[in-house]
Amino acid sequence: MIRKNLNINGKMQMMVVDPDSLLVDMLREQLKLTGTKIGCGQGQCGGCSVILDGKVVRSCITKMSRVPDNACITTIEGIGGPDKLHPIQLAWTVHGAAQCGFCSPGFIVSAKALLDANPKPTRKDVRDWFQKHKNACRCTGYKPLVDAVMDAARVLRGEMTEDELAFKMPADNRIWGSKYPRPSAVAKVTGATDFGADVGLKMPAGTLRLALVQAKTSHANILSIDASAAEKMPGVFKVITHKDVKGKNRITGLITFPTNKGDGWDRPILCDKKVFQFGDAIAIVAADTEANARAAAENVKVRLEELPAYMSAPAAMAEDAIEIHPGTPNVYFEQKRVKGQETGPIMKTAAFTAENDYYLQRQPHLTMEPDVGLAYFDEEGRLTIHSKSIAIYLHHAMICPGLGIEPEKLRLVQNPAGGTFGYKFSPTMEALLGVAAMATGKAVTLKYDYFQHITYTGKRSPFFVNLKFGADKKGKIQAMESDWIVDHGPYSEFGDLLTLRGAQFIGAGYGIANIRGAGKTVCTNHAWGSAFRSYGSPQSFLASESLIDELAAKMGMDPLELRYLNVYRPGDTTPTGQVPDAFSLTEMLDGLRPIYKDALNRAKKESTPEKKKGVGISIGIYGCGLDGADSSEIAVELTPEGVVLSSSWEDHGQGADIGALGTCHEALRPLGIAPDKIRLVMNDMATVPNSGPSGGSRQQVMTGNAIKNGCEMLMNAMRKPDGTYRTYSEMKAEKIPLKYSGKWTASMCTACDENGQGSPFSVYMYGVFMAEVTVETSTGRTEVDKFTVFADVGKINNRLAVDGQIYGGVAQGIGLALSEDFEDLKKHTSLSACGFPYIKDIPDAIDIHYVETPREHGPFGAAGVGELPLTSSHVAVINAIANATGVRITQLPALPHKVLAGLKK
Amino acid sequence: MIRKNLNINGKMQMMVVDPDSLLVDMLREQLKLTGTKIGCGQGQCGGCSVILDGKVVRSCITKMSRVPDNACITTIEGIGGPDKLHPIQLAWTVHGAAQCGFCSPGFIVSAKALLDANPKPTRKDVRDWFQKHKNACRCTGYKPLVDAVMDAARVLRGEMTEDELAFKMPADNRIWGSKYPRPSAVAKVTGATDFGADVGLKMPAGTLRLALVQAKTSHANILSIDASAAEKMPGVFKVITHKDVKGKNRITGLITFPTNKGDGWDRPILCDKKVFQFGDAIAIVAADTEANARAAAENVKVRLEELPAYMSAPAAMAEDAIEIHPGTPNVYFEQKRVKGQETGPIMKTAAFTAENDYYLQRQPHLTMEPDVGLAYFDEEGRLTIHSKSIAIYLHHAMICPGLGIEPEKLRLVQNPAGGTFGYKFSPTMEALLGVAAMATGKAVTLKYDYFQHITYTGKRSPFFVNLKFGADKKGKIQAMESDWIVDHGPYSEFGDLLTLRGAQFIGAGYGIANIRGAGKTVCTNHAWGSAFRSYGSPQSFLASESLIDELAAKMGMDPLELRYLNVYRPGDTTPTGQVPDAFSLTEMLDGLRPIYKDALNRAKKESTPEKKKGVGISIGIYGCGLDGADSSEIAVELTPEGVVLSSSWEDHGQGADIGALGTCHEALRPLGIAPDKIRLVMNDMATVPNSGPSGGSRQQVMTGNAIKNGCEMLMNAMRKPDGTYRTYSEMKAEKIPLKYSGKWTASMCTACDENGQGSPFSVYMYGVFMAEVTVETSTGRTEVDKFTVFADVGKINNRLAVDGQIYGGVAQGIGLALSEDFEDLKKHTSLSACGFPYIKDIPDAIDIHYVETPREHGPFGAAGVGELPLTSSHVAVINAIANATGVRITQLPALPHKVLAGLKK
Repeated sequence: MIRKNLNINGKMQMMVVDPDSLLVDMLREQLKLTGTKIGCGQGQCGGCSVILDGKVVRSCITKMSRVPDNACITTIEGIGGPDKLHPIQLAWTVHGAAQCGFCSPGFIVSAKALLDANPKPTRKDVRDWFQKHKNACRCTGYKPLVDAVMDAARVLRGEMTEDELAFKMPADNRIWGSKYPRPSAVAKVTGATDFGADVGLKMPAGTLRLALVQAKTSHANILSIDASAAEKMPGVFKVITHKDVKGKNRITGLITFPTNKGDGWDRPILCDKKVFQFGDAIAIVAADTEANARAAAENVKVRLEELPAYMSAPAAMAEDAIEIHPGTPNVYFEQKRVKGQETGPIMKTAAFTAENDYYLQRQPHLTMEPDVGLAYFDEEGRLTIHSKSIAIYLHHAMICPGLGIEPEKLRLVQNPAGGTFGYKFSPTMEALLGVAAMATGKAVTLKYDYFQHITYTGKRSPFFVNLKFGADKKGKIQAMESDWIVDHGPYSEFGDLLTLRGAQFIGAGYGIANIRGAGKTVCTNHAWGSAFRSYGSPQSFLASESLIDELAAKMGMDPLELRYLNVYRPGDTTPTGQVPDAFSLTEMLDGLRPIYKDALNRAKKESTPEKKKGVGISIGIYGCGLDGADSSEIAVELTPEGVVLSSSWEDHGQGADIGALGTCHEALRPLGIAPDKIRLVMNDMATVPNSGPSGGSRQQVMTGNAIKNGCEMLMNAMRKPDGTYRTYSEMKAEKIPLKYSGKWTASMCTACDENGQGSPFSVYMYGVFMAEVTVETSTGRTEVDKFTVFADVGKINNRLAVDGQIYGGVAQGIGLALSEDFEDLKKHTSLSACGFPYIKDIPDAIDIHYVETPREHGPFGAAGVGELPLTSSHVAVINAIANATGVRITQLPALPHKVLAGLKK
Repeated sequence: MIRKNLNINGKMQMMVVDPDSLLVDMLREQLKLTGTKIGCGQGQCGGCSVILDGKVVRSCITKMSRVPDNACITTIEGIGGPDKLHPIQLAWTVHGAAQCGFCSPGFIVSAKALLDANPKPTRKDVRDWFQKHKNACRCTGYKPLVDAVMDAARVLRGEMTEDELAFKMPADNRIWGSKYPRPSAVAKVTGATDFGADVGLKMPAGTLRLALVQAKTSHANILSIDASAAEKMPGVFKVITHKDVKGKNRITGLITFPTNKGDGWDRPILCDKKVFQFGDAIAIVAADTEANARAAAENVKVRLEELPAYMSAPAAMAEDAIEIHPGTPNVYFEQKRVKGQETGPIMKTAAFTAENDYYLQRQPHLTMEPDVGLAYFDEEGRLTIHSKSIAIYLHHAMICPGLGIEPEKLRLVQNPAGGTFGYKFSPTMEALLGVAAMATGKAVTLKYDYFQHITYTGKRSPFFVNLKFGADKKGKIQAMESDWIVDHGPYSEFGDLLTLRGAQFIGAGYGIANIRGAGKTVCTNHAWGSAFRSYGSPQSFLASESLIDELAAKMGMDPLELRYLNVYRPGDTTPTGQVPDAFSLTEMLDGLRPIYKDALNRAKKESTPEKKKGVGISIGIYGCGLDGADSSEIAVELTPEGVVLSSSWEDHGQGADIGALGTCHEALRPLGIAPDKIRLVMNDMATVPNSGPSGGSRQQVMTGNAIKNGCEMLMNAMRKPDGTYRTYSEMKAEKIPLKYSGKWTASMCTACDENGQGSPFSVYMYGVFMAEVTVETSTGRTEVDKFTVFADVGKINNRLAVDGQIYGGVAQGIGLALSEDFEDLKKHTSLSACGFPYIKDIPDAIDIHYVETPREHGPFGAAGVGELPLTSSHVAVINAIANATGVRITQLPALPHKVLAGLKK
């Protein structure tokens, strides 16, 4: 231990610290200054940035022995608080720069040091600074962050006042369609938002800290588990194994289709007989400190019998492969697609055909916040689990039998989440926390380090797709044949549904009358497949949006014009036979055409043998909702202060708060309630009804409609005969109920049948993407210079949120195209090794053009937005590489060595 | 557990809490908002005051179940920080209202709520508010707090600006003699000062929390200690008994005199053979949490053989009393006083004699902060103990052999201390912490609750005094005979020295040529005697300052005039035969005389049969230093920024920082260094030299002289031939040493001999006190209406600090006179049960008049101050009661029932 005097945010603080401990641990654990976040814990994300004697340092890699005595440390708490935002913080809120908000403190601290050193930076200076200091963001595509820094610098230089920068209420007091900052923004930019690890740190004394004993192999039989040595280690309260689980010890995969050959009960909470993948949890150590728990976990002895590990779908499909789940074939589900006539004959007579094989990789989510949660028994004796769950009611159903608890005794709560992008559709941690709380009777917390977060959360399931188009002389596609294989990892969770997405989205956007093909779901020993933004569609569009370019090339036709010829027009139906809810793709392509032509000309002019430039486009489509008659429920209540809106519109960071607030405020406009009088109660089963999960861009449509419905019921109750509205006091006096349950069901939808035909979604989103790239021919390295998006996501609720979703989704598409992967268990274990895009990997120029086609089934005409930008933005980049170099990358990501190999051919 | 959303200082905070836990624990332990302090933990001190939904609540008695969801909580951290003080906080610094500063956050929070509710309060309103909300202060006498609130209210009303309120640097830039606020004030008023419990809470994870197994009896043989059940309890790391102590397991009492019949090794760290007093530590439980440690401590089984408990000196002196420490007589030390001629013959012929017996009670220190500390092994492997020690080097010597550690491997550090008033001259907790850290090899913390703090820290040792004066016709005292018995509790620690104080101060102030008598130190089983402000003198002056009034009454002479006749004049010597260093008592009595006469007239006029008024005076004297050739050392170093001053001028709250800073700034005035460029490094054996303990008002004189010496050496080194001074760079360039060791020794002093004769102190402080009281005849209740002080403490370093010491000392004198006691082990276990004076027990009118006689041996003429106001202020109150009612109280405190009994006689 060492005694240090430190000036922390202007306060002199005497600290006793372990010299080998980290600055971030002193700040967070010893001082509970939790505004400084731990993301990767390896100095790769900048979430822990603080200013130490004038310099930005990453506190997660700064040992206390290196912090000088009397050092001056500034954390986010020292920059500004909710009562007085620093101009950088204000700019962050105004530009929607805090989405999940987990990276915001680190960026703002870093920006503060930049502006202290350079009061008048260029945009390039700002980008260079964030690159140098490894400030990483997964939500925003970085552009809003640079916008915010530039405006903050103007304010600090006196060229703009804070009032000029701040959001101003429109004259009509309507926030729908405006840039009203999300209600959670101020807490996020001041570090006041407690994410899961922060809540965990602030738990009462006596809370047990958990560590997992995990498999270090991918497939094995468990022979024995010996916890005797671990149980004697310092601070250990209990070592928990499958024997301590009261229930079925399974997380049910909630099998959707009767033709699934599995039963959905394939996933143990704690492994009992077998290990199915690397990282599988075998035991949990509960101890007084995380360090003690982790030390003891190292000493639980597990004897295993190794089995052959099938690390990809083809391996698991081999004839000699054993069944990973004995009794269930490794290929456990098949989804056919049958639309129109047989395609075989058409192909034979088609003027043009094109065919190719594609592989989309196991994309890691790479959220800034590693997975985390806590559990305790509440005042009513309910097992209460706080996590990043984006599906609290759904997860309740998935883990309840496994835990062996009565449903009414289980309560799930969502903590503020530092990004999920879908991986939190899987309730792994929730079940582990539940088991540990039940086995110990104590409050427990569990957090993964970034290695665990990468290796033991679900990933996007790779697709192997074979696709063939047959077109007539003009290029009109007459037939499509598609086969796809889904590597879903060892657990069945939504694997059938994901396979269906291939049937729904391969070739989507084009009015193709005749379709055949089938998708197979394959069990493997690689990472389990979990939800990921645009679920199933990036795989689908990689095939169809690549192949259409290949077809165009064969025909010598411009790929934009070939798309223009084929996109949905009245009379066309989707691959599932549904009538599209909007026909705006032509309008978007018309809008893009001149921009595209300019880009092509520019690329041609600027290309050199060393740096080849190219332009690529793609179209993308996704549904808003769960397949079929999805529904949602909310509650709205009149109070003396205004209105309370209760929902389980879970937040990934996408802006559930502003989504709910904007919709509610619009619905209640006749009442003239100010937005800050609408209080949001969210995401706690004890206090909110079931609005369904936050997945599939469903909430703005489903829960938005439920909010509209509830608000209408409330206003009907408040409305007097003369058309004016009763006040709260008048309602009370007349004994009129104050609380209303708003509901909505997409009753116009039908789920897809065994042939992949149906009308699964009430609302769709449509987009067109264009990427401009430079390929360095000596290395094969691709840089995206500019990105253009046309989006029809219906009427826009909040511009900041929708812009932010698109910027962020495009950035993830660029990462998917060029660098991101989780394949090699030895190599792909850190943010940068997984190919995370930093600021200089994403262009500063991202232009968005909206076509706001009002949706019949969307509240106030709105659709969703979150999935759209990642449906096919990656394919625009792949197509641009082909345009620049002639190299067609079909196995993603397009790493430099692959492009270089193509160039050398 | 219960989930709550709370607005804490403007931040929305989601908390998971135990509904039975306390609001203060959530704030401090879960959020590390340690500005809110735990003093008594029983709702009696207001240190934990916070504003909950607009109302002041004591958070230590507010269960979380009573805190509503969405409640608004304001703590000191939410009122203002070091960067922006709230006007109340600014006023607190300017008025010296934060001495130890432990109560400051609670008072400021309370004042904030007052001024929110009543922007224009009267002084009475303020006093009523603090009384109602039980805001307790032990340092300041309350007056500066009311001054601060009144000024803050003016600022908030716009009648005064913050600039007008703030301290302004004098034109000559001299802070010596000014009201420069102490450097630690800002941290104290913002809650940023971490006291021991706060440092403990911020220790790294894995720090063990200790709880004591304590004796519940006062005298017993230990038969067995069984820790087996406790060691199996949750979270327990180890149960430590005397068997685990490596060294002698004794805290040495550092016997001062060879005639002491004990050897000083009487006090076990952890009891082995015997229990000597209630509360004695028998074992220590080290566990993960304090709750677990305390629960396990309850389960350590100790079998005892009860022995007769001697709860007072007479009981322990009885013939049949067994030896408490076998082998050492219970009366283990005797101090004679022999000056001048035999007094027997003089008494026989004296014109007037007066004689009486007096008893001064076991005054409890009642600091706001209970005892607390922590220990760990530092980066050099040194056992490092942080505590409230006011004597780090001395304590090192006292506990080192007991612990069994090499001296160079033991390091003591003082934490900011929430008041000590001397009890931290005893290193009890330090030794316990050392044993626990050595036995576990871990960092450990220990804090007492207030019950433990009262029952298991040292107390002022009661004196039984018999005193006789013989005077001539005019009233000139010719002879004094005095015998005194000191009830020192079971441990010898400084008991001989304390007994000597009787010889030094009974009758001090008067030039009495002939003195006889003897004091005895008696071992008992009541609380051990530790240092307490004015050590030994309140007992001494109770006798002599009461008896002189009794003599005056006998003679029919005014007590002021009788004193005036007898006080030191040139040619007189002190009772020890020393020539006084100042003869200002006559000047002070001259100054008091008209005020005294007015008071007497007022009392006479305003007295009624129901409310009798009276006036009493007393004189008080104390030495500055340890007996004999006391010395001190400091270090002063020139740095690029200014100067670093290193010392072990430990702080009780008296203002060690401003003492050192003011002296250093004055010494360095030729250099023109601004005060904020003098950095103070204090109270850590690893970084500061031995300046000696902070006791006996010695530091301003001893360490002040050492500072002056060091600064002179530095300036001599910096001085160029032309009389100007070298800069830091010039010194470096010329390779002149930058660091100087300043030393000073009171070589003019001689310790007292076996007859109590010698010149023990180089500098004395002199004072005259006057109390005006009202006695309610129906109840015997005494109220002090006004207090007047004349003080000669030499040239004043800092007016705020010196005023504050006097206000606070007077308040303790009033408590000593009227209410404070620690006698009944069953009853005297809380702040209020011990007779703690709240604001309405202390008059708002306390007037101080200074006579600044420059001291030859004081730096820049300064003496000390801390002990003076408690030497005899209590006797002024006792004399005033006698003046009002004729009732002479000789057995303190003057509780209503005693006065009533006197009135009934």
